[in-house]
Amino acid sequence: MFAVKGSCNAAADKLESPGKRRFLDGRGGNLCRPSPGVSFSGLGKLRSNSISAVLDKVGTGTVEGFNGATLADRLRLGSLTEDRLSYKERFIVRCYEVGINKTATVETMANLLQEVGCNHAQSVGFSTDGFATTTSMRKMHLIWVTARMHIEIYKYPAWSDVVEIETWCQGEGRIGTRRDWIMKDYADGEVIGRATSKWVMMNMDTRRLQKVTDDVRDEILAHCPKELRLSIPEENNNSLKKIPKLENPAHVREGLMPRRSDLDMNRHVNNVAYIGWVLESMPEEIIDTHELQSITLDYRRECQRDDVVDSLTSPEQLEGEGVQGTNGSAAKSSGSFLHFLRLSPSGHEINRGRTEWRKKAPK
Amino acid sequence: MFAVKGSCNAAADKLESPGKRRFLDGRGGNLCRPSPGVSFSGLGKLRSNSISAVLDKVGTGTVEGFNGATLADRLRLGSLTEDRLSYKERFIVRCYEVGINKTATVETMANLLQEVGCNHAQSVGFSTDGFATTTSMRKMHLIWVTARMHIEIYKYPAWSDVVEIETWCQGEGRIGTRRDWIMKDYADGEVIGRATSKWVMMNMDTRRLQKVTDDVRDEILAHCPKELRLSIPEENNNSLKKIPKLENPAHVREGLMPRRSDLDMNRHVNNVAYIGWVLESMPEEIIDTHELQSITLDYRRECQRDDVVDSLTSPEQLEGEGVQGTNGSAAKSSGSFLHFLRLSPSGHEINRGRTEWRKKAPK
Repeated sequence: MFAVKGSCNAAADKLESPGKRRFLDGRGGNLCRPSPGVSFSGLGKLRSNSISAVLDKVGTGTVEGFNGATLADRLRLGSLTEDRLSYKERFIVRCYEVGINKTATVETMANLLQEVGCNHAQSVGFSTDGFATTTSMRKMHLIWVTARMHIEIYKYPAWSDVVEIETWCQGEGRIGTRRDWIMKDYADGEVIGRATSKWVMMNMDTRRLQKVTDDVRDEILAHCPKELRLSIPEENNNSLKKIPKLENPAHVREGLMPRRSDLDMNRHVNNVAYIGWVLESMPEEIIDTHELQSITLDYRRECQRDDVVDSLTSPEQLEGEGVQGTNGSAAKSSGSFLHFLRLSPSGHEINRGRTEWRKKAPK
Repeated sequence: MFAVKGSCNAAADKLESPGKRRFLDGRGGNLCRPSPGVSFSGLGKLRSNSISAVLDKVGTGTVEGFNGATLADRLRLGSLTEDRLSYKERFIVRCYEVGINKTATVETMANLLQEVGCNHAQSVGFSTDGFATTTSMRKMHLIWVTARMHIEIYKYPAWSDVVEIETWCQGEGRIGTRRDWIMKDYADGEVIGRATSKWVMMNMDTRRLQKVTDDVRDEILAHCPKELRLSIPEENNNSLKKIPKLENPAHVREGLMPRRSDLDMNRHVNNVAYIGWVLESMPEEIIDTHELQSITLDYRRECQRDDVVDSLTSPEQLEGEGVQGTNGSAAKSSGSFLHFLRLSPSGHEINRGRTEWRKKAPK
């Protein structure tokens, strides 16, 4: 069903039998970069909660160690929360991160989710080789790979807005872990978005999925909330909804190619590029009149430098039928679309996705 | 010579007769975003130099006005220098901003230059409509557009490195202004890169270039160093060197297409995408063994949503001949390439460029 290409293959909807299948790093085979997944051999570096004191020190030219924190640790506007079971960081939206609507693009938001995940992992003492693994995982040559990513944006921040993102992890049965995020407008505390992701363990040598062992589970759970905490809590929401395969696309954009800047250090395509490719085949009239409310991507197969990609899109339901926004979001979707990215010309599935769109507010 | 396409055309090497030619926004027709060019109708908002005091205030939950500064102003790790004639900001390299070499990509560096330019403009009181214009410019419907960008990177920062970028502007005769940047590794103060750019004024209504008037010049110079200050001071350096048209390319990558995320609010391609396209036609063996030392781009024509682009590259001299690095950089180039981006199939010139490459350090 999912043919092997190169050394990687993926079957994200078959997580119940991970050992039987090969898998890819869902961030695009990004096996060396620090993963937003959990990890962490220890409690990590001491961090000061008093940013003012730290910056004061930096301001006087002292860039030496401060409680063992790196220079970046001290300048970053983020830290573990008081209970050390989640991590919060603030980001100022930069001028080059906004798009057509003068607000942050969904790619910007996805990048920030990745960054805050990386920094969380780092702050609890992840393996510094970039694999963000626990001690047990390193012994067994295991790494984390993404199986699914779901992002909901209720309000896109504008240039110079300050976004605060909180993130945390938890176990997801035997099959892996889950990382959740809540995005807030830091000026008024309004929740402007939520996201959740599923991660599974892959053996680097065999490139096969593997169940989470007790050892790894214990190492992870030490850094997770003790009670289930979900950014998108309802059972029946789009973050869980199955994505059917798109058979007869209404809109196709063929011949998309990775750029060098899409490649990570393993020369695989970074996951944010997939979001861009999905949007490529959206009909122009929807882009012009709507904004993206949510995107869900199931990761199946990695993309490499010389691959050519086709982006396929079809409406999942008629415009205006409406889908209830999840989790208390006031905005209702006014259109849902199914997406399919495939390798050209083989047609092999890279990933499938769903997007929901709401009408733009009148200006 | 340079045919008009749509409403924009460009002839960056004909700046001596700007009134006779049409022009484009060199950041990709980015006419609404705050420009890294100068501007500024006034001295702007009061800013505190005591970041620690500010953050202390924020840390206690106070997000109200503080000397009139916005929340972003207070959280940003940047401010005007003491003489108020340049602006410095620190950035932590994010996990998604590094590429194959585990260091920041040149696109990341170009983005940060744009951001620090925007923030400089903002900090001295630019027009908040996003055009970064002076009072006189607004009266005359004039905006800044980029004619040339030249970036030199001596050492690429790694993930979590802290980069400090200083930027300032100055007059460039009657034809426009110049913005310069110096990049430093904040940990040890080492200069890791320099950049310079030329900007010209365009009338938004006619889309023609226009000489800088005395009024505009006075408004600009109030915020510029009183004596000439160049980040790349030598007369005979590559930031000034003419770029010939590439006639017989050795390497061609055809069929490049803008993605939605490349488009700014005017649906024009952002300038950083051009850097990526230039690199697309670099031979793989150079990318594998070398790193980019400098890039110079002359902006001629904007790109739009449905354009298809060909990237052309040829060595400018034989590998190993070497070109002296400018401005005290220890690294010598081990190869220089000429580049040409053209619209397909018309062949119309989008921009031309030159890159220099040095051998990667052995690992």
